[in-house]
Formats: sequence, C-alpha cells, structure tokens
Amino acid sequence: MRRILIKAAYDGTDYHGWQEAENAETIAGNINRALKRLTGEDIEVMGASRTDAGVHAKGNLAVFDTLSTIPSDRFSYALNTCLPSDIRILSSKEVPPDFHFKNIKTEKTYLYRIILTDIPDPLRIRYAWDISFDLDIEKMRLGASFLMGEHDFKSFCSVHTDARTTVREISHISVEKEEDEIRIWVRGYGFLYNMVRIITGTLVEIGRGKRRPEDIPGILDALDRRKAGPTAPPNGLTLIQIVMDQEAIRDVKL
Amino acid sequence: MRRILIKAAYDGTDYHGWQEAENAETIAGNINRALKRLTGEDIEVMGASRTDAGVHAKGNLAVFDTLSTIPSDRFSYALNTCLPSDIRILSSKEVPPDFHFKNIKTEKTYLYRIILTDIPDPLRIRYAWDISFDLDIEKMRLGASFLMGEHDFKSFCSVHTDARTTVREISHISVEKEEDEIRIWVRGYGFLYNMVRIITGTLVEIGRGKRRPEDIPGILDALDRRKAGPTAPPNGLTLIQIVMDQEAIRDVKL
Repeated sequence: MRRILIKAAYDGTDYHGWQEAENAETIAGNINRALKRLTGEDIEVMGASRTDAGVHAKGNLAVFDTLSTIPSDRFSYALNTCLPSDIRILSSKEVPPDFHFKNIKTEKTYLYRIILTDIPDPLRIRYAWDISFDLDIEKMRLGASFLMGEHDFKSFCSVHTDARTTVREISHISVEKEEDEIRIWVRGYGFLYNMVRIITGTLVEIGRGKRRPEDIPGILDALDRRKAGPTAPPNGLTLIQIVMDQEAIRDVKL
Repeated sequence: MRRILIKAAYDGTDYHGWQEAENAETIAGNINRALKRLTGEDIEVMGASRTDAGVHAKGNLAVFDTLSTIPSDRFSYALNTCLPSDIRILSSKEVPPDFHFKNIKTEKTYLYRIILTDIPDPLRIRYAWDISFDLDIEKMRLGASFLMGEHDFKSFCSVHTDARTTVREISHISVEKEEDEIRIWVRGYGFLYNMVRIITGTLVEIGRGKRRPEDIPGILDALDRRKAGPTAPPNGLTLIQIVMDQEAIRDVKL
C-alpha cells in the first residue's frame, strides 16, 4: 500500500465543494471516481482543505492510499485522462504511509477577488464578487491590518464549525486595487469555516462606510459571529496554494 | 419605430457563436428571445461582429428596431433581467433610423490569450489556449510586425468567406508576455473570417521555430490560406471593443 500526495486545481463553479456527498457533484467525488476507473479500488481521497461549494483552487492538496502499480509521479497524468476539464491534477508524489495533514503545519494562501461594476462582467463573474458601490480601499487596508497575527477568530467563523479552538494566525493580509478590481490576499496557518469570506464581507462593509476600520478589534473581542459582516459569496474565493512545513514532510515536495 | 444600439459582453464558451441558428444556443438568439419577452415583438438583432462559437466579447455592438415604449437607455437593464448571466448588455442608446454598421468605419480590438503550461489551468482554460511547448516571444513580435498596416490578408482568411475584398488594415499588433501568459493584441478596421485566429496560429508556429518571422511577407504574397499556420482555438479569443468613427455616428456614444 502506497500513500500518494496530489496537488489539484479546479474551477468550483459547477461543484458542491470538495467533500464527497450523495447526489451531488463534488471535487473529491470526481477524483474518487477517476481513481476507481484507474485502479479498480474504492479509494477515498482526503483533502488538506475542504473548499466550499463554488470556491476555486489553484493548489489544493490531497492524499490517498492505493495498491496499484501506477508510478507515483504518473498518477497526475493518469487521473487527468479520467477527470472533467475543470478539475486538473497538477502533480503527484509518494509520501510516507503515516503522512497526514493534521500532523503537518501548513500555510494556506487565499485570494478573494471583487469587481467594482454596475453590470457584472460575464468574463470574470465566475471568479469574482461584483459590487456596484464604491469601496474606500485605504479604510479596508487599515481594517485588515487589525486582523494580522494571532487572534481568536470566533467572530469570523461560521457557527456550523466543529473546530476545537478558534485561535488562528494570519501571517499576511493585503488589499490591492488594479483598475476596477480589488484583490484581498490572506495567508495563514489554518483557517476556520468561512473565515476568509467573513473577513471579506466585513472589510467590504468597512470600505462602504457602514463600519469603521477601528471596529475590528471590538469584533474580534466579542467572539460572536453576529458582530462581523456577512459571508461574501463563494465564487470570489480561490485557494491559491498550501505550503507544508518542510521539516515535517522531509524530502516530499510538490 | 426606434433603432436601438446596444453594447454586449459575453462568455462564449457555452454558445454556438453570435449568429442565430436553429437548434443551437447563440448570443443573438438569446437576445432576440429576451427582446420578445420584453416587447412582444419579433425582433432580429444585428451584430457589428458575428463572433464564432466559443469566442468571447467584452464589447460587441448590435442594433435592433422596436415599437416599444421602453426608454432607450433602460433597454440594457431590462434585457439583463431576461438574459442568462453569461450574456450582459452593458449599455443601450437610440441611434438614427438609417444607422447601419456597414456604413460606419469601425476599429475593432481583439485579444488572444495563450498560457504556456503542461497541464491546462482550470481557472483560465475557458479564456485561453494552453500550449505545452516554449515560444520565442521576440520572434513572434518580429513576425507580427510584418502584419502591420494595409495588406491583402487572403492567406489569413478561412476559405469559407464571402468577403468582396480581402484587403484589410491592421492598425496595431503587439505580443506581450507576463509570467506564463502570452497576450496577442490586434486592432484594425474590419477583419476577415478567422483572421485573428489564423494570425495567432501562424505566430505560434514562428514562436515554436517551425517558421521564421521573415516568412510572413511571403505568406501574405501567396494569397493562399494553406501557406499560413493553423486556426487557433476559439476559446483564447475575446473581442475587446469596437470603436465607431465619431463623425459617422454624430452624437451617438456608448
């Protein structure tokens, strides 16, 4: 039995998220089906991040176990021949049999794209949230700065969570603007359910003037989801990459 | 009877091109159906550019005639309520009843996107041609420079054309590279059928080393489609904008 680590990119628009579910097309469900076709085995792929319905990824990671003789680095090519074109396996590699994401420190990078427009752009609407009012980018930047570092992010977590602790660390957050597009970059060690989307919804309310940047510390202190802004729509969010702690994974590199 | 000019943006992926056709979803067909719902009239919208199946637009233009009392500038909003989200009407305005694209000099700007990648990126594949070999950008630029200005572009026109003359003028052509993406910008007064896609296919062969940049003048002189490169796939092509000669259209502006 070998454990294989894969890196996956996908357009989440037409999927009910990563996690396999009955009567729903999911990313994991499609990968499991492709693995069945390739190996004949009933394999359940385990994702490093269970992205929500409509959320995209440029580099999610996942592992699975197999008895097949397909060379580890050829699984990506083989899987791509069995997957729809909006899901691609970018690479594959064997990892130790005890490899598990929960034992490894990972830094995840998310990008949330917003377009400022009265009429949604059909060429970007799959990948961005269209907003028809102006946003004060400087206020959004100031608000974001209060989220840097380690905090209890309970207020920025959907109530449907089963996380043991809601303390997380954001190692980088920035708000960029280029023409009519705003890009919110968030990097950190572990994220809570809907955390980046709630951060985005709150920063948009700040940019719109409904809240002040200085309200963020109070929202964090409240430990109450109702104190933060709305959950931004999923289509604007992309999981860009997951970097694993090098010591933990020894010579494994994707 | 009023003549209304509209500007349309669309993701062409799921459509069989602009032109209405039986048993096929088209851009014009959807706009005609939306106009029928709004006005009750059987209206045929006339496009400035009949984009091919799979080709996108950020600013195609079209006109239609109507007896309805909907204010001219409200047609865009009204139409968007009846159209699928991958087709958006960006603006609408009344034009003189004798307005017709064939009487107006228009400058069209096209963008062709190429991604250099072994594995297609699911987040860009709808809008770009994925190529797995390296391209020499400097050679492509040199090749493109020979296409500038007025030429007989018969060699760069699909044989299925009904154009009276194949002489056209390219006012701007450039090849940009940013990270793993190559962007070919082409601007000109009127284009032949598949012209930008054949130019792209030929420049890619130059970039790959299968042809030399200096071959372009000979290809033009041959007046023979078989001398140029292949037709690049439609998904990489976007009609960015159409600028109408200001004198011809008087105070009409979209």
